[in-house]
Amino acid sequence: MSEENERHNAKMRKIKAARDKMMEQKTEQKGLIMVHTGKGKGKSSSGFGMIMRCISHKIPCAVVQFIKGNWDTGEKSFLRDNYADECRFFVSGEGFTWETQDRARDIAAAENGWRIAKEQILDPDIQFVLLDEINIALRYDYLNIDEVVDFLLTQKPHMTHVCLTGRNAKPELIEAADLVTEMTLVKHPFKDGVVAQKGIEF
Amino acid sequence: MSEENERHNAKMRKIKAARDKMMEQKTEQKGLIMVHTGKGKGKSSSGFGMIMRCISHKIPCAVVQFIKGNWDTGEKSFLRDNYADECRFFVSGEGFTWETQDRARDIAAAENGWRIAKEQILDPDIQFVLLDEINIALRYDYLNIDEVVDFLLTQKPHMTHVCLTGRNAKPELIEAADLVTEMTLVKHPFKDGVVAQKGIEF
Repeated sequence: MSEENERHNAKMRKIKAARDKMMEQKTEQKGLIMVHTGKGKGKSSSGFGMIMRCISHKIPCAVVQFIKGNWDTGEKSFLRDNYADECRFFVSGEGFTWETQDRARDIAAAENGWRIAKEQILDPDIQFVLLDEINIALRYDYLNIDEVVDFLLTQKPHMTHVCLTGRNAKPELIEAADLVTEMTLVKHPFKDGVVAQKGIEF
Repeated sequence: MSEENERHNAKMRKIKAARDKMMEQKTEQKGLIMVHTGKGKGKSSSGFGMIMRCISHKIPCAVVQFIKGNWDTGEKSFLRDNYADECRFFVSGEGFTWETQDRARDIAAAENGWRIAKEQILDPDIQFVLLDEINIALRYDYLNIDEVVDFLLTQKPHMTHVCLTGRNAKPELIEAADLVTEMTLVKHPFKDGVVAQKGIEF
């Protein structure tokens, strides 16, 4: 074995020992409040990646889509057509708020979505709930942030995971969450005139 | 309608007009080089969310997993068991590098993965290729970054999308990419002693 390889392997043995020790201390299981925010891509799609994992592990799950309702998104037809039993799929919103241009209707849709979300989170059969684009509804105060945070902190069953996605997550939600990821836009081809494309954006 | 609602609706009309104008200028379709990097979560799972969209839209796709090979990941069994025709799934790596502790074997595995990756990218039947955790292989120089970037820029078919995931993406790759998202860790429950959990982490 070359000297470089031996050095590398020794370094990796050290890393492994440190990781093993760290992992020993991680014993707690609990349902997480997760937030995906930021201007970058991947907020919803990583939520749907987790839904794929849940279905594979036979973890009953639910999705409530707050905004993208009238789009023919790949994830909606995929889950509704193939996994209606494994993953309940609800739509409350009717498109982005600049498409509906009707605040009263947006509020009614958001409130309906939140009512469904609470039912799913409280349902003992459901272990993972994805609240897709709920941050948009919170940002425009279609939903009351204090009520949402209070519900998550006091009424969510201990082992139930909830993932909330969308730009501009409110500070109160970030404070309450266990795991927050900000998707940061480093480069985006929209700037260069490339359209939203099937499979990638929706 | 209340005054607040009217103001809101007028603002949304303006936003919609600006967006419509912007979208008119976006007419180009092309296969993208996408990178998901950063320390936050969602790099792989958003890749698998796009795979879900591809399957739904009947876009033939392929996955090459460079590192997580010997994990029983939800995405691997889900895709292999249910979508072997729609999504080709290859595994080259045998675990994180600190688990194998054998640089020569890691290099052989990475090279094998890259050989498969090139075949899939060049295959005219395949329109989306996910190179999961390839950035780890590039970071440790198991693969030559110049060769990978050169292949993507000069040999990738025009309409084929390639998504490369993993921490510490090399600057050369970021420079070459069309779309780069950095997943930034804002908060992580590992710090508080919570273990990696099914459905969420794998």
